[in-house]
Amino acid sequence: MASYTIGLDYGTLSGRAVLINAENGAAVASAVYEYPHAVMTEALPDGTPLPADYALQHPQDYLDVLDHTIPAILRENGISLREVRGIGVDFTASTALPVKKNGTPLCFLPEWQGNRHAYAKLWKHHGAQHLADEITRIALERKEPWLANYGGKVSSEWSIPKLWEVLREAPDLYECMDEWIEAGDWLVWQLTGKDTKSASIAGYKSFYNKRTGYPAKNFFAALDPRLENVIAEKCATPVSPLGTQAGTLNAAMAARLGLAPGTPVAVANIDAHVCVPAAGVTGPGQMLAIMGTSTCHISVSHAERQVPGMCGVVEDGVLPGYLGYEAGQSCVGDHFAWFCEHCLPGAYYEEARKHGVHIQQYLTELADGLRPGQSGLLALDWWNGNRSTLVDFDLTGLMLGMTLQTRPEEMYRALIEATAYGTRMIVENYRAHGVAVDTFFASGGISQKNAMAMQIYADVLNMPVHIVGASQGPALGSAIFAAAAAGLYPDVARAAQAMAAAPVKVYQPIPEHAQVYEQLYREYAALYEHFGREDDVMKRLKRLKN
Amino acid sequence: MASYTIGLDYGTLSGRAVLINAENGAAVASAVYEYPHAVMTEALPDGTPLPADYALQHPQDYLDVLDHTIPAILRENGISLREVRGIGVDFTASTALPVKKNGTPLCFLPEWQGNRHAYAKLWKHHGAQHLADEITRIALERKEPWLANYGGKVSSEWSIPKLWEVLREAPDLYECMDEWIEAGDWLVWQLTGKDTKSASIAGYKSFYNKRTGYPAKNFFAALDPRLENVIAEKCATPVSPLGTQAGTLNAAMAARLGLAPGTPVAVANIDAHVCVPAAGVTGPGQMLAIMGTSTCHISVSHAERQVPGMCGVVEDGVLPGYLGYEAGQSCVGDHFAWFCEHCLPGAYYEEARKHGVHIQQYLTELADGLRPGQSGLLALDWWNGNRSTLVDFDLTGLMLGMTLQTRPEEMYRALIEATAYGTRMIVENYRAHGVAVDTFFASGGISQKNAMAMQIYADVLNMPVHIVGASQGPALGSAIFAAAAAGLYPDVARAAQAMAAAPVKVYQPIPEHAQVYEQLYREYAALYEHFGREDDVMKRLKRLKN
Repeated sequence: MASYTIGLDYGTLSGRAVLINAENGAAVASAVYEYPHAVMTEALPDGTPLPADYALQHPQDYLDVLDHTIPAILRENGISLREVRGIGVDFTASTALPVKKNGTPLCFLPEWQGNRHAYAKLWKHHGAQHLADEITRIALERKEPWLANYGGKVSSEWSIPKLWEVLREAPDLYECMDEWIEAGDWLVWQLTGKDTKSASIAGYKSFYNKRTGYPAKNFFAALDPRLENVIAEKCATPVSPLGTQAGTLNAAMAARLGLAPGTPVAVANIDAHVCVPAAGVTGPGQMLAIMGTSTCHISVSHAERQVPGMCGVVEDGVLPGYLGYEAGQSCVGDHFAWFCEHCLPGAYYEEARKHGVHIQQYLTELADGLRPGQSGLLALDWWNGNRSTLVDFDLTGLMLGMTLQTRPEEMYRALIEATAYGTRMIVENYRAHGVAVDTFFASGGISQKNAMAMQIYADVLNMPVHIVGASQGPALGSAIFAAAAAGLYPDVARAAQAMAAAPVKVYQPIPEHAQVYEQLYREYAALYEHFGREDDVMKRLKRLKN
Repeated sequence: MASYTIGLDYGTLSGRAVLINAENGAAVASAVYEYPHAVMTEALPDGTPLPADYALQHPQDYLDVLDHTIPAILRENGISLREVRGIGVDFTASTALPVKKNGTPLCFLPEWQGNRHAYAKLWKHHGAQHLADEITRIALERKEPWLANYGGKVSSEWSIPKLWEVLREAPDLYECMDEWIEAGDWLVWQLTGKDTKSASIAGYKSFYNKRTGYPAKNFFAALDPRLENVIAEKCATPVSPLGTQAGTLNAAMAARLGLAPGTPVAVANIDAHVCVPAAGVTGPGQMLAIMGTSTCHISVSHAERQVPGMCGVVEDGVLPGYLGYEAGQSCVGDHFAWFCEHCLPGAYYEEARKHGVHIQQYLTELADGLRPGQSGLLALDWWNGNRSTLVDFDLTGLMLGMTLQTRPEEMYRALIEATAYGTRMIVENYRAHGVAVDTFFASGGISQKNAMAMQIYADVLNMPVHIVGASQGPALGSAIFAAAAAGLYPDVARAAQAMAAAPVKVYQPIPEHAQVYEQLYREYAALYEHFGREDDVMKRLKRLKN
C-alpha cells in the first residue's frame, strides 16, 4: 500500500491542499480555493467601515477551503482513503481570532458580527502599532529577558499586541471571548476536535519559551492591570511541540471531507517555516527566503545569539534540535502589485495584452534591459513598514533620483532592488551578530516567476541564489511534517531527506553588477540609517496624517 | 485712429501673437502656433540620437510662428495696418543658438544639420552642468565680483556654459559660428534686420552689467585659453536697454506678415520678466510668480542685495529704474505633466473622459478632497534639478511617506505641495537677505486653471495670492513694452498703468491649513537641507547612472 500525506497551506489570499507521495515527495494532486472575503481593509461584510491600518479575515473562508480542496484532490486519483496517512497544516502566523470555549469564532455569532474585533486579525493588520510600541517600552524598562530573543522590539503583527487592542477597544468582546487563538491552531482544532497549540507559533508570536514559558504575570499587569491573568484567562491551551501529532481527524470532519477518521493531524506550523525542510534546508549556515506578498527569512543554528531587529529566535521553532531564527520584510510582492495597480499607465497594460503576457512579466522585460544603476533611482522598501531589522511599521516608503526622464520600468526595477537591499541588510545583520549565512535559498512565487529579480538578488547579495524546486513549497513542507507526525519517518529531518525538492536553478552573481550594487547598497544603508534611526520625519508625517 | 501693438510671446512649446489695444490693454485677437519640432530630447530631425540632459529646438519653428500667427490676428478685425504701432517680443531666455554673420542659424546649413550643437539649446538643456560647476569654481577661486549678483552660483541653463559646451564638444562648429545669440535677440534681428541684443537678457544670462560690462578677458581665459576673446569673437553685438526700440520692421518681413514697414520693434525681453508690468506690478515688495512648465519669481527693489541662490539681480533688468531680482523653480507644470503621463493608471483617464474633463482637472478634483497632511507624503520638487535657492541641476526628485494605501491623487497633491514649499523657500531666502516680499502675485497657466494649487500656495506661503488677470500675460507685457518703445507712452511704467490687467481673484490663506503646512514646510526644509547641502547621494547616483 502506497503512503500519501496531505499538506494544507493557508496563505494571505487563498488556501491550498496538496496530496503528496510520502515516499518521494512527489505532488499527486493540488487544489486552491480563494477566500471569498479575501482581506477586509475597508469594511466588514455588513458594510461597517474599518479604520486605517486594518486587515481582517473571515474564518468561514478557512473552513470553506477544506470543503473545496480536499475532496477535489482525492477525486479521480485512484487513491484509497486509507492510503492518506497524515495531514499537516501551515498558516500565515500572527493571524489570530477570538473564539468561544467550543471553538466558535465570535464573528459567527450574530451579536458580534458588526464588531471589527470579532474577526481574524490578519498578520498585516497594523492597528496595534501603538500598543506594540508600548509593550516594547515597558519590556525594556523592566529589562524583560525574553525581549532580546525578538530582536529587542515587539512587532504590531504579533498576537499579544493584537489581543491588547481587542481589550482596549472592545472590552465587552474581550470579556465574552474564551480564547485568543492563532488561526492555524484553530484550524487544527476544527480538524481534530482537540484544542492544542503549536509551540512554534506561540514561541514566535506570543513570547512563549520552551524552558521558561510565557512572560510573568506582573509583566502583563504592568501593561494593563486587566491583562495580569491574560495567559490563564485567554491563552491557556496546552502547547504541543513542532513535528508531533496534535490529534487525529474527528469523525464528523472525516465524513465531511471524505477521509478516514483517526488520520493523524500534525501540530500547526508557520507557513514560512514549514518551507525549510521542503527546500531541503536541514542545517546551519543556510538561509531560506520565502518570497510572496512579504518575505520571510529563516535560518537555523546551534548557537543562540541575540540579533537585534530579527523577528524571533525559538528553540525547536523551525527544526527540532536547532535554534530557529526568523527575520522578514513586510512588503515585497505587495509592493510590486501596488505599483502595477496605482502607478502604471494604461499604455503598459495595452502593450502587455498585445504581447500576451502578464503585466509584471512585461514590465520585467523592460526593466531587465536596464543595467544596474542606470535609472539613477534608489528606494527604501518600507511601503508596509520595516519588519527587520528596524521592526517599525510606522516607517514608510521613499524613492529618490527621479527626473522628468524617469520611466515606470525604472521605478519598478528600483522597487525590486530595494527589496534586495533589504534582504542584504538582514543577512549582514545576522553575520555581524555571529549567525552565519553562507548559502541563500529562495522559494515562493517571485523566486519561480521573476528571473530578473532573482539575478538582482544574486548580484546585490553577491552570493549564489538557489531556487527551491517545489512550486508548492509550504504545502510540501506541511506534508513532510504530517509524515513525521504520522510516524512514517523517525523525525522531520529524515522525512525531509526523502521528500524535499531539489533546487531547480542557481543564479550566480555577475561580478560587474555586484560591484555597482555594492555602491548602491552603501547608499541604501545610509538612507536606511538616516530615516530608520536618525530622522523621524516618516513618523511625524504619519502623526499629522492620523 | 486707434492704436494697437502686437505682443509676441515665445514659450517652451509654442509661440503666440496677441493684438492689444494700446489705450486700455484689451486683447483684440490672439493666435498660437505649436512648434513642429517641439523640444528635441531624444534625436535630431535626421534621427541622430541625443545624449541625456539634452533639450534642443529648431529655429525654423520660431519663424513659422510669425507666419502662422501675425496674419491670423490681423485678419477680419477691421484694423488697418497703420493702426499697428509697435511690436514687442519676449522669449524663453537662456535659449541660445549659433549663427553666421548674416543671422543664418548653423542648423539651416546642410553641413551642420547632423551636429547637435548647431541647434538652439533650450533653457532646460542641462548638458553643460559640469561646465557651469567649473565656471562657479573658477569664479569663486578668482573672487569674481559679478558672481554675487547671480546668487553665488552659475546655472547650467545660462548662455556662457552652453557656449563653452559647444567649444568643448564641437570646436569646428564653434570656429564656424560668427555669433552665439539668444533666441529672442535673434528673432528681433529677423524682424528688423538689425543685430542688437537686449541688455536685460545679457544681464541675466551672460553676466553683462550695465556699469562694468562683461567679465574680464582673463577670467574667460582661466576657463579655457580659447575663450579669452569669446566676447569680442562670438558675443560682440551691442546691447540696447530694455524699454527702447531695437529697430523697425524691415520691408521684406513687413510684406511677409502684412504689416507696415518701419513699425517700431522693442528690444527683446525675457518671457517671465515681461509679465511684471502686465500684472500691474510696478514697485518694491511685490513678487510675481509666473507658473508654467517652470516657475519664475520676479521682484524689484531699490536696494541692491546679494541673495545667495537666486538667478540674478540686474539693474534696469525688469523695470527701468529698479534692481530686478529673479529666482526660479525648474520643474512645476512639467512635473505634473510627467506624473500624468508616466504614473497614472488608465482608469483615471477613463474616469476623466466619462466626466468630460481634462485629466489634471479630474485629478485635482480628487486631490482637493484631501486635507493638508492627510496623504502622509512629502516630496522634494527637484525632478528637473533645483534652480533656486540651490542652483544645482544634478539634484533629483524625492518622495517619501508612501504606503500600500497611497493613491495617485495623493502623490499628485504632494507634487503640487512640493512646488509650493519650494516657492516659500525662495520667499524666505529673499526676506532673510533684506529683500521684502509682502504681496504675492501669480500668473501663467497654472494660476488660471488650478484653484486647488493656488489655495495650497496661499496656505503654504501664509499670504494672499493675487491671480493676475491676463490669461496672456507675457504677450500683454510685450505689447506694453512695444507701446513704450513706440513712444505711445513716455515710459514702461506709464504704459503699464494704462494697459495692465487687474487681478481677477485673490486666494486667502485658511488658518487651519496654514498651521499644518507650517509643520510640513519645516519637514520639507529639513529634507531640502539634508539632500541639497549635506548628503550628496543624488549626485553620486547620477554619476553611477552616466
